[in-house]
Amino acid sequence: MAEHTVIFDVAPSPIRVPTGTLLTEAARLAGVELAQPCGGQGRCGRCAVQVLEGQVRRRSTLRLSAEDLAAGYALACQTVIEGDVRVVVPPQEKIERRLTTDRTAVEVTVPAGYDPQHAQTIHRVALTLPPPSMDDQTDDWARIQRGLRQHAQLADVKLSLAQMRRIGRTLREADWQVTAVLDAEAWDCPNCPARLIDLLPGHVPDDAPLWGVAIDIGTTTVTVWLVDLRTGKVAAQAAEYNAQIARGEDVISRIIYSTRDGNGEELRRLVLGTINALIEAACKRLSADPLTIYKATIAGNSTMMHLLLGIPASSIRLTPFVTAINHIPTLRGEEVGLAIHPEATVDCLPGVASYVGADITAGVLSSGLADTDKVTLFIDVGTNGEIVLGNRDWLVTVAASAGPAFEGGGVLHGMRATRGAIEEVWINGQTYEPTYRVVGNVKPRGICGSGLISLVAEMFLTGLVDKGGHINLNLPTPRVRTGEHGPEYVVCWAADSAEGHDIVITHVDIDNLLRTKAAIYAGFTVLAQSVGVPLETVEQVLVGGSFGKYINVEKAVEIGLLPDMPWDRFHFLGNTAVRGAYLALLDRDARARIRDIASRMTYIELSADNTFYEAFTSALFLPHTDLSRFPSVQAAIAARNHES
Amino acid sequence: MAEHTVIFDVAPSPIRVPTGTLLTEAARLAGVELAQPCGGQGRCGRCAVQVLEGQVRRRSTLRLSAEDLAAGYALACQTVIEGDVRVVVPPQEKIERRLTTDRTAVEVTVPAGYDPQHAQTIHRVALTLPPPSMDDQTDDWARIQRGLRQHAQLADVKLSLAQMRRIGRTLREADWQVTAVLDAEAWDCPNCPARLIDLLPGHVPDDAPLWGVAIDIGTTTVTVWLVDLRTGKVAAQAAEYNAQIARGEDVISRIIYSTRDGNGEELRRLVLGTINALIEAACKRLSADPLTIYKATIAGNSTMMHLLLGIPASSIRLTPFVTAINHIPTLRGEEVGLAIHPEATVDCLPGVASYVGADITAGVLSSGLADTDKVTLFIDVGTNGEIVLGNRDWLVTVAASAGPAFEGGGVLHGMRATRGAIEEVWINGQTYEPTYRVVGNVKPRGICGSGLISLVAEMFLTGLVDKGGHINLNLPTPRVRTGEHGPEYVVCWAADSAEGHDIVITHVDIDNLLRTKAAIYAGFTVLAQSVGVPLETVEQVLVGGSFGKYINVEKAVEIGLLPDMPWDRFHFLGNTAVRGAYLALLDRDARARIRDIASRMTYIELSADNTFYEAFTSALFLPHTDLSRFPSVQAAIAARNHES
Repeated sequence: MAEHTVIFDVAPSPIRVPTGTLLTEAARLAGVELAQPCGGQGRCGRCAVQVLEGQVRRRSTLRLSAEDLAAGYALACQTVIEGDVRVVVPPQEKIERRLTTDRTAVEVTVPAGYDPQHAQTIHRVALTLPPPSMDDQTDDWARIQRGLRQHAQLADVKLSLAQMRRIGRTLREADWQVTAVLDAEAWDCPNCPARLIDLLPGHVPDDAPLWGVAIDIGTTTVTVWLVDLRTGKVAAQAAEYNAQIARGEDVISRIIYSTRDGNGEELRRLVLGTINALIEAACKRLSADPLTIYKATIAGNSTMMHLLLGIPASSIRLTPFVTAINHIPTLRGEEVGLAIHPEATVDCLPGVASYVGADITAGVLSSGLADTDKVTLFIDVGTNGEIVLGNRDWLVTVAASAGPAFEGGGVLHGMRATRGAIEEVWINGQTYEPTYRVVGNVKPRGICGSGLISLVAEMFLTGLVDKGGHINLNLPTPRVRTGEHGPEYVVCWAADSAEGHDIVITHVDIDNLLRTKAAIYAGFTVLAQSVGVPLETVEQVLVGGSFGKYINVEKAVEIGLLPDMPWDRFHFLGNTAVRGAYLALLDRDARARIRDIASRMTYIELSADNTFYEAFTSALFLPHTDLSRFPSVQAAIAARNHES
Repeated sequence: MAEHTVIFDVAPSPIRVPTGTLLTEAARLAGVELAQPCGGQGRCGRCAVQVLEGQVRRRSTLRLSAEDLAAGYALACQTVIEGDVRVVVPPQEKIERRLTTDRTAVEVTVPAGYDPQHAQTIHRVALTLPPPSMDDQTDDWARIQRGLRQHAQLADVKLSLAQMRRIGRTLREADWQVTAVLDAEAWDCPNCPARLIDLLPGHVPDDAPLWGVAIDIGTTTVTVWLVDLRTGKVAAQAAEYNAQIARGEDVISRIIYSTRDGNGEELRRLVLGTINALIEAACKRLSADPLTIYKATIAGNSTMMHLLLGIPASSIRLTPFVTAINHIPTLRGEEVGLAIHPEATVDCLPGVASYVGADITAGVLSSGLADTDKVTLFIDVGTNGEIVLGNRDWLVTVAASAGPAFEGGGVLHGMRATRGAIEEVWINGQTYEPTYRVVGNVKPRGICGSGLISLVAEMFLTGLVDKGGHINLNLPTPRVRTGEHGPEYVVCWAADSAEGHDIVITHVDIDNLLRTKAAIYAGFTVLAQSVGVPLETVEQVLVGGSFGKYINVEKAVEIGLLPDMPWDRFHFLGNTAVRGAYLALLDRDARARIRDIASRMTYIELSADNTFYEAFTSALFLPHTDLSRFPSVQAAIAARNHES
């Protein structure tokens, strides 16, 4: 096959590729980073590049104007190379690194009465063994086992081939004074033998930390807690964007991306890169060696779990939406690719369905939902909206395909909640002039999820939009107008913005937001109906997810995203997934409970449910077609109408 | 560091090595095979090469004459390179490949009443699974597990990460008709979950073979039996010299060799090469794919087991002679490096001590020793002499360091039982003229172990040697004479020999043989004394090992190697180790029994036992100082004396 030379302006050297190579592939080979938030489907237009010279074939030109095409622009993910080419990569929007350790760190209370002797399965046992002699020719491993029986009442222990190769030398070099690191019980097999993870020379002091790590792999953010298993204390926290974002912003994009040759492996490496860098950073602060981390628990949605483990995820996306595996057997650090002790125990927490994963079972565990008598609604709003309704006796769950509106997707000036994002808005009911708060107190660049909720709620209450989400163009303010994309409201004039253009919300944006909130609210409705519990009798609402932390309940109720009930019934729990992973890291009973939770959760598939479509349609309004469901909003509207 | 060019006459191209590199190491790098039967200790002189040009430093010149040194000869294992050198490798004695499959194949009877349903843990289960639907979104793995519960009553099954990655695709490509290959029970953990080894597309026919392999790793010979686990039938047998022989003929030499950098890994690869070639050859004859072998059991002495698994073996050789591990947990094909299914179950059978390994526990199992009421002596004579005394109620064992005499080592014209070896000798009591039988019916090249036993017995009974092993030089025959090495007897004149020189047995040779037989007989004595059972009350003697097959009981009793008892108490069982591995391959109960045998065997360390030295000294005579122990020999001597 013919080969061609490809020169990227930002690459250190030209590369040679065969005819038919995708520009994205060529970029990767050349070491050029091209964002592909839509997963290389040609939808988002973010990978557009300018082909200055040479022959290419464009499979799709979606999002490119005739002018763009004339200037040589092409979507890299849709364009194949057919001759020697020279390519210019325009500066790309960089992901801002808002997530510093300090910003995402939270106060973590060790569970009351944490007793590592009972709850923890990872132990260090100091052994002083009698050296072998002609009167005692017991083999090395049996000698260690004898010591473990005497000092730790462990009757049955096994070891890996790697350890078999090592123990003899360690015993002799350490003069028969050693410390065994053990996992006393596999969570998926309480009857299995205990496992020797490592044999360390000498006696490790009792007060030396015994490290474990709780990991939550979010579609957007990866969080790591480094935990001293002796005390249960979280010694360090670290969080960072999931490096997979560059290959798709939502799970669907990533699954599509992963199905092409070698891409699954690339996604696996990307998320491992993020996790391992976080572990290293957390360890560095404590001068801890990552290789002394002996246990990891991992939460994450089903797609994240499949991609982490290199398990094909395509069936998650295709009807009838099934995963390859929900209950993953215990693995070891090395198998997974974690930069911790190669024989560390790795427990991937169990999921329930394609769109109700281990992040939710972990959330149910850590939120206490499965331990309470109160009828409780648990919601984790992120890229998807997973909802659980239940109490200690029963649990039902749905996944509402919320779409990316809350993450800034599908919204003209939407963005993630990074520096420059408008995160809260207030609108004057007389002048229709807004005031807002911006992340980082800088000039605004766009609007993030909580900003959108706040903005639309305010527009509704001030009459800028009607209950159908239509912008009222007849109001006496220059901020409502018909723009390129139809009716819009100007939140920020170009002069006040960071990038010198008006920041607006369009009718289309509002429509997208309505669909998102309607999907979630309809999820509540279906759950409540499925168990015959009226939504208003729900005794508490637990909101998880990092997005949940920034949400304003009043506004969320006003747009009909959350059910209308007294504020004191709402509790914002932050990242419940990592906390669930943390509890599972500490306590064998917590691991058993989470498996029990996963088995007990009844999953309702919304796409197969007619009541969902009815509920969805009814919820496509502000706040809802049935205003009696939202008495506080009804009152607020009445009050405003009375004022004006 | 300075580098030098080394040219071997038999190597395809020169190589470059740093100053100080051993010639053996350089030879290996150049792809030149140098035999090192003593393990590179400079003892055997077999690796001598001629350095034609260049600077070398000889650490040891043992076995080289002044003439040799003048001609540039050097022991490659003791000589380091200090300049550009040119080396000639003299033609080496090649290991003759007597072991063809046909020669070593034996008739194997399937154990009576073999019921794979109960006894076998490897099973194939055909599954026709309902495809997932919107009404049944069970994940792939849970769907398989459900099928296994229904079709095979398996409540708990686990799978590897590799299988997690594969099952989704197999299920869909095979349209939900698959065959699960399972190991229902780990031998070292009956309570552990069953294990999915593989998921095959479609339904494998019930009558398709289900392969397992029993392996015996002898110090000299590796034997492989390919077994259809459905029927228990041995479908193919193959045997070959252990390729490690070139790096040491006995276990001690190999351990010494293995302790040098990288050599352990080389020995591991060598034996794996032998095993995998045998498996491939056996499979080829049956058109079977080695990757469809789902289980292996391995017998072998403790050193062979350690070297196979890459476990350092040095402690086996050093006081107080302990292994790293006797009871090895279940491993997988891939871990061990076997060219079978990567997830096949590999059970290395358990050993008892450094010199009583899994070959002996397997031998005890297959010989029936542990099932009989009769007081039984079991002996496996190979490079070492391991002896077990016992019955169903008790078992004691010793390892007699027999030395290499039976394998042709330490004997001037000794050789292994290959083509050209004198394997039996008869001597005329009047003329002192010998007749002999030669392996392959060719001109003799030397004398093998059974030939030596036969020869010395005949020499003793004809008065050529006295009971102290001294050759009587006063007899009227030119065959007794004083040669270069002292008194000797000419078995074959140069004219009748293959290599044109006299084949003799010297006083030193006889002395070595006496030490060997004395060590073994003293082992019997110590065992019998340790349990207070007179040796003559032993009800049967079971002889295992391939050497045992060629031994002549009468002659062995005459020299005092075996105890003097009626011939019908002796049973020659051939390779009891591979048969034990075969039984363990078939039957979970056999695996449990062999573990039980290993635990029950009381090992007596001879080197710490004073009674051993006394018994050894008494046994250094022909047949023994206490002639009353050998009544039949006493009678034979009396008869001859009467005749003459």
